[in-house]
Amino acid sequence: MNLKHILDGYKVLDFTHALAGPTTTRLMAEMGADIVKVELPPVGDMSRLLPIKLNGRTSYFVQQNRGKKSICVNLKTPEGRAIIHDLIKQVDVVVENFSPGVAERLGIGWETVKTLNPRAVMCSISALGQQGPLSELPGFDYIAQAYSGITGMIGEPDGAPSLPMIGLGDVNTGVHAACAIGFALLHRERTGEGQYLDISLLDSYFHCHEINVAMYSLTGKSPTRAGHHHFAVCPLGLYKAGDGYVCIIALDHQWPSLCEAMGRPDLVTDERYKTNALRCTRVPEVVAIVQAWVDSLGDTETVLAALEKHRVPCAPVLTIEQVCNHPHMLERGTVRKINDPKLGEFSTPGMPLRFSGFPNNIPLEAAYTGQHNDAVLSEMLGYDAARIKALREAGILHENEDT
Amino acid sequence: MNLKHILDGYKVLDFTHALAGPTTTRLMAEMGADIVKVELPPVGDMSRLLPIKLNGRTSYFVQQNRGKKSICVNLKTPEGRAIIHDLIKQVDVVVENFSPGVAERLGIGWETVKTLNPRAVMCSISALGQQGPLSELPGFDYIAQAYSGITGMIGEPDGAPSLPMIGLGDVNTGVHAACAIGFALLHRERTGEGQYLDISLLDSYFHCHEINVAMYSLTGKSPTRAGHHHFAVCPLGLYKAGDGYVCIIALDHQWPSLCEAMGRPDLVTDERYKTNALRCTRVPEVVAIVQAWVDSLGDTETVLAALEKHRVPCAPVLTIEQVCNHPHMLERGTVRKINDPKLGEFSTPGMPLRFSGFPNNIPLEAAYTGQHNDAVLSEMLGYDAARIKALREAGILHENEDT
Repeated sequence: MNLKHILDGYKVLDFTHALAGPTTTRLMAEMGADIVKVELPPVGDMSRLLPIKLNGRTSYFVQQNRGKKSICVNLKTPEGRAIIHDLIKQVDVVVENFSPGVAERLGIGWETVKTLNPRAVMCSISALGQQGPLSELPGFDYIAQAYSGITGMIGEPDGAPSLPMIGLGDVNTGVHAACAIGFALLHRERTGEGQYLDISLLDSYFHCHEINVAMYSLTGKSPTRAGHHHFAVCPLGLYKAGDGYVCIIALDHQWPSLCEAMGRPDLVTDERYKTNALRCTRVPEVVAIVQAWVDSLGDTETVLAALEKHRVPCAPVLTIEQVCNHPHMLERGTVRKINDPKLGEFSTPGMPLRFSGFPNNIPLEAAYTGQHNDAVLSEMLGYDAARIKALREAGILHENEDT
Repeated sequence: MNLKHILDGYKVLDFTHALAGPTTTRLMAEMGADIVKVELPPVGDMSRLLPIKLNGRTSYFVQQNRGKKSICVNLKTPEGRAIIHDLIKQVDVVVENFSPGVAERLGIGWETVKTLNPRAVMCSISALGQQGPLSELPGFDYIAQAYSGITGMIGEPDGAPSLPMIGLGDVNTGVHAACAIGFALLHRERTGEGQYLDISLLDSYFHCHEINVAMYSLTGKSPTRAGHHHFAVCPLGLYKAGDGYVCIIALDHQWPSLCEAMGRPDLVTDERYKTNALRCTRVPEVVAIVQAWVDSLGDTETVLAALEKHRVPCAPVLTIEQVCNHPHMLERGTVRKINDPKLGEFSTPGMPLRFSGFPNNIPLEAAYTGQHNDAVLSEMLGYDAARIKALREAGILHENEDT
């Protein structure tokens, strides 16, 4: 079989907006799936309003929606709903991230989808899940983050928690959803059966507690945030060099190497610091020793060179500017340039899923709102030009080239 | 077909340890795959040394390794390697998260795997990727986090960055890897072809920059950490109530609702605060207004009730204790109790991938080191008891019931 990419031939009907849902279908677009994004008039995906805007076009939307066709359909009309129902019959996957209950009200709930297409895999993505006492609250990434116990584990212990200025929850929840879809499609290959997937930011965030939940459960001790030095591994933290911060980690087997790197072989045999457990009872002392050594060297590069020579895990805390221009990121394609007809060339994160059988970066373009109304309705549904024109004139189809 | 779970019948040979790799195979175990975890003597998976320890058993290992068989084999002997090569011929998936280059030295690199089993999907998980100038550095979650520009985006702007006390990078990279494996297996169903997957913490972390990279690329401005109030949305931040912090978010369409909730309808029409763009130029003023209102109410519950009444997105910053006992988390199974023969009952995060066709929480047990040596060698490879005994006596197979 001569496939363009791994999902060549798979069709997805995509009702997502903003970030978590579009991440899921973006990954599938980068794997070659045929994505029909359904936008609701008049604005379409609300992320079309977000920065960075140039020539009426926003990088936020473009980054998440390259390689997706856009149709813009008024779902509140019977004709609009009929279009969508006809499309549901033809696709392999339906994805939505409305608030729980909205999909049903729009006539695209799972009961409807599975009646129309029993082979469909449908994935709903929400902040707090489809069921439970909190499910109907309005939700965003940081709301789920706070409820999941993540926010409380970030920041200096004597101050407010800190909010990561990154879409950690949305993007990773989008990956959780894509993962579930992949396995559900695999299952469908074996059985012919579709199914429904309920993926939430809350579950996906909470999933990341590798030790906190068990610690509380088994010891009764509720761990909390610890600033920039870890509470369970020492040394594991951030040290201030002259020109920035350096992350330094030494597990038990690396502690002697760190002592050597610091020119302090005496510490290797010092009974006070011999094990991680002991060092964790003397964190301020250990931190002071390492910080004094960092101070004596001065800049980040010198500190890193000394540590790398002894194979001590370390890293500079890079700024966005530094990471975007770092040779490793460029060579690897962790950061990549994409081209957009209105925004021109700009950088985005690369495709994080790397398959040896397929290229990692296929050329894709983002659509303006409703750009593929005609193409999708004629090619997938066999509507003729007159019928499409009538739908447009009746306000059921909508386009906005200035997006 | 009567399947126990979605991956019933799929076989995985699992060379992973610690957190990112075991997350991948844990998800597959929870989906019913048959996982044979290969541990290296004498210690096995290094996470067996981590807390919380009870009766010689650690919750850290148990949480990540339920439902996996364990064999403990000396890979540095020809006989040990032969066992592994015979197993590679029988499995669908091979996963490893050694440092780049180690798999090759152990005789389980992709070139070997694909020669033995061209249908195998192999996934390597690393901190900084298989290629590139940084790939050979020793890596952990926080190392990749610092290099990816994530750490620098967390924390108060005038202080050190903050380290999240959660395995965000490891766990989410494990999900990225599982996602890639699912689609690679789907592809194999169509074509019979295996392939190699290169998944890294660096790429997975960097993937989460939803706006930072494009902002720097298009404007030349490198965004940086902003503490507990967002730099691009106002109000979006953490407010101190009498008994904890509350996250409050109001996008443009929610700003009037927040003003109503605060009993400040005058602010709705106040030209200074009318749009998010305007409010972002006056963050300290807006924060002071909202904080004064929070102060006037007192505790978290009162603040949340007032906001929820007006559908303003809000959440308490929960402690680990609070989240583990929250009715929503318990009802949903976001937190669940598991049973272990040595640790007894304790809580862990629930399975975040929810499939309508299968139960969300199947009973699984973690193995001691080498627990399934006999079962795997006899059932999968047809070794007889005498041969297994000889391998054990020669130190090629290893067991430790006290783990």
